[in-house]
Amino acid sequence: MTPPRQRIVAVCGASQATDGDRATATAVGHLLAEHGFLIVCGGGRGVATAVAAAAKESGGTCIGLLPGDRHEDAAPGVSVPIATGVGHLRNALIVQSCQALIAIGGGYGTLSEMAFGLVLDKPVVALGSWSVTRPGESDPDPTVHRASTAAEAVEWIERRLV
Amino acid sequence: MTPPRQRIVAVCGASQATDGDRATATAVGHLLAEHGFLIVCGGGRGVATAVAAAAKESGGTCIGLLPGDRHEDAAPGVSVPIATGVGHLRNALIVQSCQALIAIGGGYGTLSEMAFGLVLDKPVVALGSWSVTRPGESDPDPTVHRASTAAEAVEWIERRLV
Amino acid sequence: MTPPRQRIVAVCGASQATDGDRATATAVGHLLAEHGFLIVCGGGRGVATAVAAAAKESGGTCIGLLPGDRHEDAAPGVSVPIATGVGHLRNALIVQSCQALIAIGGGYGTLSEMAFGLVLDKPVVALGSWSVTRPGESDPDPTVHRASTAAEAVEWIERRLV
Amino acid sequence: MTPPRQRIVAVCGASQATDGDRATATAVGHLLAEHGFLIVCGGGRGVATAVAAAAKESGGTCIGLLPGDRHEDAAPGVSVPIATGVGHLRNALIVQSCQALIAIGGGYGTLSEMAFGLVLDKPVVALGSWSVTRPGESDPDPTVHRASTAAEAVEWIERRLV
Repeated sequence: MTPPRQRIVAVCGASQATDGDRATATAVGHLLAEHGFLIVCGGGRGVATAVAAAAKESGGTCIGLLPGDRHEDAAPGVSVPIATGVGHLRNALIVQSCQALIAIGGGYGTLSEMAFGLVLDKPVVALGSWSVTRPGESDPDPTVHRASTAAEAVEWIERRLV
Repeated sequence: MTPPRQRIVAVCGASQATDGDRATATAVGHLLAEHGFLIVCGGGRGVATAVAAAAKESGGTCIGLLPGDRHEDAAPGVSVPIATGVGHLRNALIVQSCQALIAIGGGYGTLSEMAFGLVLDKPVVALGSWSVTRPGESDPDPTVHRASTAAEAVEWIERRLV
Repeated sequence: MTPPRQRIVAVCGASQATDGDRATATAVGHLLAEHGFLIVCGGGRGVATAVAAAAKESGGTCIGLLPGDRHEDAAPGVSVPIATGVGHLRNALIVQSCQALIAIGGGYGTLSEMAFGLVLDKPVVALGSWSVTRPGESDPDPTVHRASTAAEAVEWIERRLV
Repeated sequence: MTPPRQRIVAVCGASQATDGDRATATAVGHLLAEHGFLIVCGGGRGVATAVAAAAKESGGTCIGLLPGDRHEDAAPGVSVPIATGVGHLRNALIVQSCQALIAIGGGYGTLSEMAFGLVLDKPVVALGSWSVTRPGESDPDPTVHRASTAAEAVEWIERRLV
């Protein structure tokens, strides 16, 4: 029997993250690794560093899609560093390569990744992140799922990727 | 004396646009061409078709960055069709190639282009388009300028690109 | 009656070009513009600068797909400067966007563009440029057409793009 | 003491490979995995399938950078499937992400990857693959190292990446 192909979840968040964002990223990284998800992130500082370190601690694999051309620049916890050399366009590659996306915090890069997730019709969950509102609407787009805790975010994704 | 390099403005909007969005795009296309801006768009249907046709009528130039590999697929008004072959990633190329961005309507692709504009620190003006709100804030991010008419949007951009 | 969509020819060559390569690029630029082709190039120094200047002199249009994110860096003759921000990957975009390719001189970037032209099954003509030989063969791959003069190269392309 | 960051080697070859090319790829995959290299390939059929299967057998890790947007399309041995969605441009991403490149066989995609390796100044070794000759030269460019066996190719790369 073939084992099921690993599911890949993107964890997106700013390099200039708050302490709270980094704590959330750490909790998300532990949970995703424990549940057998492959993680993809931007491979740099802040949220990426926290999620990669947590994945490593829990025995998981974290892919880092870096904007520059030096794979040595990846955060220490990144097990698969990929230097794309395409700058900010790598945000779109992160979203292309995942099956679902967890957005943490309020950076513009994170917003661009959430938006690409919506374009590509992939499940997007926000943990203390942006809300986006269509013209003429008063409530945020409910396609972005809002979670309050790392556990809630990972559970929601798990149900969507069965 | 060297004439100043042409300024490039991206006009972003959905291929499945409303009549109102297409009318806005037409007005924007006329104004940008009359003010000597080079226009870049996605080159397809809806808003792109409208803005390209208007640019052509007003004697302007409209670049279409297409997702596929057939430049014949460009809308009739597109004077410079560029088949990128990179799919949805061309959204990021549209933003890379402009100095400012006008977003029309409520498509997810448009949201991704607004977000990339914010990432790259380029002026972004919304004409009946998305508002984006940071976590913990109650008001939309004011970095996205909101305009009510095509004339107001183009004037705002003109002041930012002097 | 719809006028036929403009045909786009890529002119590829090194930024560190020889005097001979620049002279060839100038002749190619004049001929392509006179024959109504849209030209796409890398937009930088050497061959790109020469072909863009010649296109401008002959009233043609030259698109420059730049590796960086500053469209001001385009050579003076470039009429449509597009800052891609993707570094060397823009070589592949140049080839995606053309219908045929003229390679001038012996730079590695030029070789990468010839190779992408072969991958995408587009006519490739070499003017004092690389020859590529398959394993086990003694003669260069004849799919790359070899021309001796700019006129011969442009004529060959014209026949292929009817 | 920090363990040294893993070194990444790209293995390039056609999806329509000969039996000989697949046998070479298998030998290369075993050796690279045994020597602790991370492998990156195109993730599809032919050479990629062979090298990924061999890497897996030897306990190694093989990244597959796929042209499409379905990571399920990766060859069975690929342990890290990355769906780029950028079509043929992923050839350039494969080269960006490696520190050295082994080219097997005579496909055009392989030639494009060798050429990108030369552009990016990365060690390129050919195992029964293309030779490229500068204009005016009679001998192939010696920057492409020619090896006769998988062992010779891997040894050469190992010396270059110390």
